[in-house]
Amino acid sequence: MKTPSSLEFLTEALRRLPGVGPKSAQRMAYHLMQHDREGASLLGRALSQAVERLHHCARCNTFTENEVCEVCLDDSRDATLLCVVETPADQLMIEQTLTYKGLYFILMGRLSPLDGIGPKDIHLERLIARCSDGVVKEVILATNFTNEGEATAHYISETLKARGLKVSRLARGVPVGGELEYVDAGTIARAMLDRRST
Amino acid sequence: MKTPSSLEFLTEALRRLPGVGPKSAQRMAYHLMQHDREGASLLGRALSQAVERLHHCARCNTFTENEVCEVCLDDSRDATLLCVVETPADQLMIEQTLTYKGLYFILMGRLSPLDGIGPKDIHLERLIARCSDGVVKEVILATNFTNEGEATAHYISETLKARGLKVSRLARGVPVGGELEYVDAGTIARAMLDRRST
Repeated sequence: MKTPSSLEFLTEALRRLPGVGPKSAQRMAYHLMQHDREGASLLGRALSQAVERLHHCARCNTFTENEVCEVCLDDSRDATLLCVVETPADQLMIEQTLTYKGLYFILMGRLSPLDGIGPKDIHLERLIARCSDGVVKEVILATNFTNEGEATAHYISETLKARGLKVSRLARGVPVGGELEYVDAGTIARAMLDRRST
Repeated sequence: MKTPSSLEFLTEALRRLPGVGPKSAQRMAYHLMQHDREGASLLGRALSQAVERLHHCARCNTFTENEVCEVCLDDSRDATLLCVVETPADQLMIEQTLTYKGLYFILMGRLSPLDGIGPKDIHLERLIARCSDGVVKEVILATNFTNEGEATAHYISETLKARGLKVSRLARGVPVGGELEYVDAGTIARAMLDRRST
């Protein structure tokens, strides 16, 4: 018994999505063809439109449909601060705090030698050029506090400090609302070391 | 901060896939745009091709690019047997056993009143017409052994038996390789009731 070739092609193509294995891909293909052909057409259009229109902001490297994104074009922002994040989603989280009014650089990834992701893949050369514009006074590293994010922050920090730039890192400590009983020992140890006088 | 509209459109469209929530959709969109634009284009093409070419087999209701699928056209099959399954994936599993040489009818779903899926959605009228061709002698119900699959089998069985057709159901019992210690009580109870003389 042979699966129709267009169904097989669709199932194979769906596996290009991260986290989608053969079974999920098959389930997705059946679902779209059986219950949501309109959704399938819509997704098809969305994909080709995104591939066609989206590219990277020439300044901060985020996704944009223009040459430079609207955050970078915003004159009211403090151009002396540059916050480095891994993804546009991280940038969005920081924006939602309404506490930061500087600019951003989006790495679009993190160093991960085991996956073959090196300094070039996180656009380190561009970040160095961006920081060396004479306006940026402080680079705030806001990569994740995972092993890979920490390693990335460390690597960038060393590289930028060697060029005489001021570099800082988001504070670590007990989360707001955190109960000590349920916070891991590593976090408490770090919060103890980084304690502040009140 | 505004997400570019084509990125937002893509993220929204990805949520049409079953099992994909806002976070996964965002992750998928970023992944495709950052690391696999070729995959994105490919998936776009696969989707429009599938929507355009795939429809349902006039006889067994599976997906096909032709009027009638190749299984239904296969003269070497036993046209007196009709096996009813929920999905093409189930049909494929049965084909892989190499023990069944009859034909199929694919419901493309199961009865599920809570989700608003009634007899019409599983093409019951077409199944009745298919079984009443004068050639089919036995209808084998191979819906899943879940609550919904069982209810579907029961409903179809009653409907077809009222029309004088012979209806059977896949045997239930201890799976091949099953150790009694690890088989659930319901399965053992059923295997005890359905015991066979040797």
